[in-house]
Amino acid sequence: MTINLKSQERIDDLGRNGYKIIQNKEKFCFGIDAVLLSDFAKAKSGERVLDIGTGTGIIPILMEAKTQGEHFTGLDIQQESIEMAQRSVAMNGLSEKIHMVCGDVKEAVDIFGTASFKVITTNPPYMTGSHGIVNPKEPKAIARHEVCCTLEDILKASAKLLKERGRFYMVHRPFRLAEIMSQCVKYKLEPKRLRFVHSYIDKEPSMVLIEALKGGNSRVTVEPPLIVYKDINIYTDEIYEIYGYDRRS
Amino acid sequence: MTINLKSQERIDDLGRNGYKIIQNKEKFCFGIDAVLLSDFAKAKSGERVLDIGTGTGIIPILMEAKTQGEHFTGLDIQQESIEMAQRSVAMNGLSEKIHMVCGDVKEAVDIFGTASFKVITTNPPYMTGSHGIVNPKEPKAIARHEVCCTLEDILKASAKLLKERGRFYMVHRPFRLAEIMSQCVKYKLEPKRLRFVHSYIDKEPSMVLIEALKGGNSRVTVEPPLIVYKDINIYTDEIYEIYGYDRRS
Repeated sequence: MTINLKSQERIDDLGRNGYKIIQNKEKFCFGIDAVLLSDFAKAKSGERVLDIGTGTGIIPILMEAKTQGEHFTGLDIQQESIEMAQRSVAMNGLSEKIHMVCGDVKEAVDIFGTASFKVITTNPPYMTGSHGIVNPKEPKAIARHEVCCTLEDILKASAKLLKERGRFYMVHRPFRLAEIMSQCVKYKLEPKRLRFVHSYIDKEPSMVLIEALKGGNSRVTVEPPLIVYKDINIYTDEIYEIYGYDRRS
Repeated sequence: MTINLKSQERIDDLGRNGYKIIQNKEKFCFGIDAVLLSDFAKAKSGERVLDIGTGTGIIPILMEAKTQGEHFTGLDIQQESIEMAQRSVAMNGLSEKIHMVCGDVKEAVDIFGTASFKVITTNPPYMTGSHGIVNPKEPKAIARHEVCCTLEDILKASAKLLKERGRFYMVHRPFRLAEIMSQCVKYKLEPKRLRFVHSYIDKEPSMVLIEALKGGNSRVTVEPPLIVYKDINIYTDEIYEIYGYDRRS
C-alpha cells in the first residue's frame, strides 16, 4: 500500500495493534491529553462512538484498538485534518470501522440525527476567546481556541446526539471546571467521574478527565490523581501502561 | 474562672494561643474537616466573618487564632450547641471577638441583614435526605444530614449575606461536586479555588475545600492535593502544620 505524505507530515507508531498515524507538526498533532482520554473513555460491544473535534483522528484510532466499540466516527470542522485522518484510517485498514466526517458541531444533529451515538468523546479547544491569536484561521488556533465552537456548543450538541444513558467523555483544563460542571448539569449530562492529571504529585493538575451520563443522577466519583512523571523525564508506571509500550527503552 | 461542664462534655486543647474547646462526644464534636477549612479559609484585617452551622464553634475559634479577621459570628440552629460554643468562647476570653447566634440559615438574612459579612465559612451537613436516620431530631443527624437545611439554602443565604467580592469557604464531600459547582454558579458565588483532601496519595479524595468569590469571573484554580497520611497513622508534615502542634509526640 502506498502512503502519500504531504509536506511537513510524518508517520508515528501508536504502539497498539501495529497502528500508525499521520501528523503534521505545523498544523495537526496530538498531545498526551488525547492519549489519556482514549484510555479514560470506555466503549462496549455494539456501541457507536463519536469523537468531536477529532483532529488527527487519534482518539477513534486508539479506541478502536483498545475497546470493543462497534463503530467510530470522527468529526472535525477542518477539511484538511479530516483528509489527513482519513489517510491514517486507510493506512491501518480501518475504513470499515472508522469514518471521518468534515462538519461543524453546531450542525452535527442535522448530520447524524438525534440519539445516534451511545458514546461521545472530545478533546475540545481549551481557551476561551481569541486573545493572543495572530491568525484565527490558522489550524492550530482553531484546535486550541474557541474560535469555531464553544464548550456550550459541544455540550448542547452532545446532549442531543447521545442516546438516553449515553456517556460523554471529555478532557479539559481544570481552570474551566466550574463552567464545565455547571453547563453539564444544565444539559443533563450529569458528571459521574472526574480524574485530575498532575505532572507531578505535588503540583496543580494540568488536565481533568470527565465522564458524564446523559440523564444520570447527581453523584460524582473523583478518582485518585493521575500522575504523569515520577521523576524528571521519567513517566509513572501508569502512564507507560496507557501508552502501551515501553518508552523507557 | 469556673468552667461548667455538662454530662458527656470534655475540654480539648486546640494547640493555638492556648485556646481550648468544649466537645460532647454524644452530640457535638468537630472533625478534621473543620480544622482543614479553618486553615484553607482566610480572613483579613477588618473583615467580618460568619460561620454557618458552627456546631462546637471550632471554626470561628480557630480562625480568630490564625487570622487577622475583625469579628466572627457562629450561627447554628441547635440551641444546645450554641450554648456550649458560647461557654467555649467565654472560656478563651473571646466574648468580644466571637458571637454565637442561634438561628435558621433560611432566616439568616433577616437576622443579620444583606451584605453584612465579607467572609462566610461553612462545614455543612454532607448527606442529602434522611436515609438511615433513626431519629432526625438527634443532634448528630442534624449536623450530618440535610434535615434542617440543604446546600441550596446555604448558598442562597450566603449570596445575600456576603458583600460584593465577598469570599465563601466550604468543606464538602467530592461526590456532590457537580451540584456544588452548578449551584455556586447559579447564585453567582463563582468557584475560584478547589483543593481535594486524600487520606493517602493513591486514594480517592474524601473531602473538597472550596473558595468562591461573590461576583467573580469564571476561572478555578485546582490546588495540589492535600494528603493526610504519609504512612499508617502518621500525618504528613502539612497536616502537622495545620494542626499547629506536634501530634507525633
